[in-house]
Amino acid sequence: MSAIDDLAAELAKLPGIGKKTAMRLTYHLLKQPSDRSLRLAQALEVLAERVHPCPRCHNLTEQDLCAICSDPRRDASVICAVEEASDIWAIERSGEYRGVYHVLGGRLSPLDGVSASDLTVNHLVERVAAGEVREVIMATNPSVEGEATALLVQQALGAAPVRVSRIARGLPMGGDLEYADGVTIAQALVARRDMVQDSR
Amino acid sequence: MSAIDDLAAELAKLPGIGKKTAMRLTYHLLKQPSDRSLRLAQALEVLAERVHPCPRCHNLTEQDLCAICSDPRRDASVICAVEEASDIWAIERSGEYRGVYHVLGGRLSPLDGVSASDLTVNHLVERVAAGEVREVIMATNPSVEGEATALLVQQALGAAPVRVSRIARGLPMGGDLEYADGVTIAQALVARRDMVQDSR
Repeated sequence: MSAIDDLAAELAKLPGIGKKTAMRLTYHLLKQPSDRSLRLAQALEVLAERVHPCPRCHNLTEQDLCAICSDPRRDASVICAVEEASDIWAIERSGEYRGVYHVLGGRLSPLDGVSASDLTVNHLVERVAAGEVREVIMATNPSVEGEATALLVQQALGAAPVRVSRIARGLPMGGDLEYADGVTIAQALVARRDMVQDSR
Repeated sequence: MSAIDDLAAELAKLPGIGKKTAMRLTYHLLKQPSDRSLRLAQALEVLAERVHPCPRCHNLTEQDLCAICSDPRRDASVICAVEEASDIWAIERSGEYRGVYHVLGGRLSPLDGVSASDLTVNHLVERVAAGEVREVIMATNPSVEGEATALLVQQALGAAPVRVSRIARGLPMGGDLEYADGVTIAQALVARRDMVQDSR
């Protein structure tokens, strides 16, 4: 397999990039000075070698603590729980949120074999039990699995003296937080509502 | 700048990849085992370091001669002249062509400062003068610049005892060969026509 086919095959494994696009990107890189490809290669290597989950919130970082957890201006008494680290980027883009985060590492999905023990729910309960947290905002996706995950977290936090809220559904049901625009996310944060225990 | 932002910035420099898509691709890679990123990095490095133009046809290759020039089953008496090496991939995809290629390295474009001397036209004339070539198929893009380039090559080959043909315009005027489907390219090759010297 040639270097050209090889790179195109690797690029085609990325989501949303088909065989034709991969080949086009490869030839695009070939037309650039070779340090363009090398810079991209280096960025990938740094990513693979240095990035790891933040021990406090499971956000991805190169530091001991992630940039948000280590920022003294962030309000550590409000934790926004999200499914994936990429959701943090989406919420930060809205510019509306000044608290910290907790990455659950996915959503409840029995069909995909994801159960409560695969998520970082227990760690979130520990963070809340350690005190100083007054609110947990559930920002899981507005899908069936996301709602189930929010309920799971709410019940796990049941005994703790903490407000548990859910971001308002500004996103259409079945939508994906990662693809939402900043304004929608900002509105959803402002209009968040308490999770009442109506499911019992 | 963090490793995540850094990779996203590099990815966003690729054509057709915006800031959001770049961030999504980066987080996708972060969810994979890290050897996925490293394999992509390695493919980029190999591309940057080993790929160079074929000395015979200017196709891109890692070998002394490109795979097509060194294939004894290809008919070296028919040369298909294209603008870019990526066009070869598009034509090969059609499965219709058994000759060899010549990459001109662009198209005539006075506005972009591309003149005849920036193209490999003289080298093509030498290849034809060396004998054994009976036909040159002009497969430059069906644009004003592509047509001008085809005419330039035809005139440069004027004295040589060689048929000069032009791929049929199956592609819409202003279209781009690289984006065409294989069937259209195959039809355009079959229906190629001689270039008559009607421009004189």
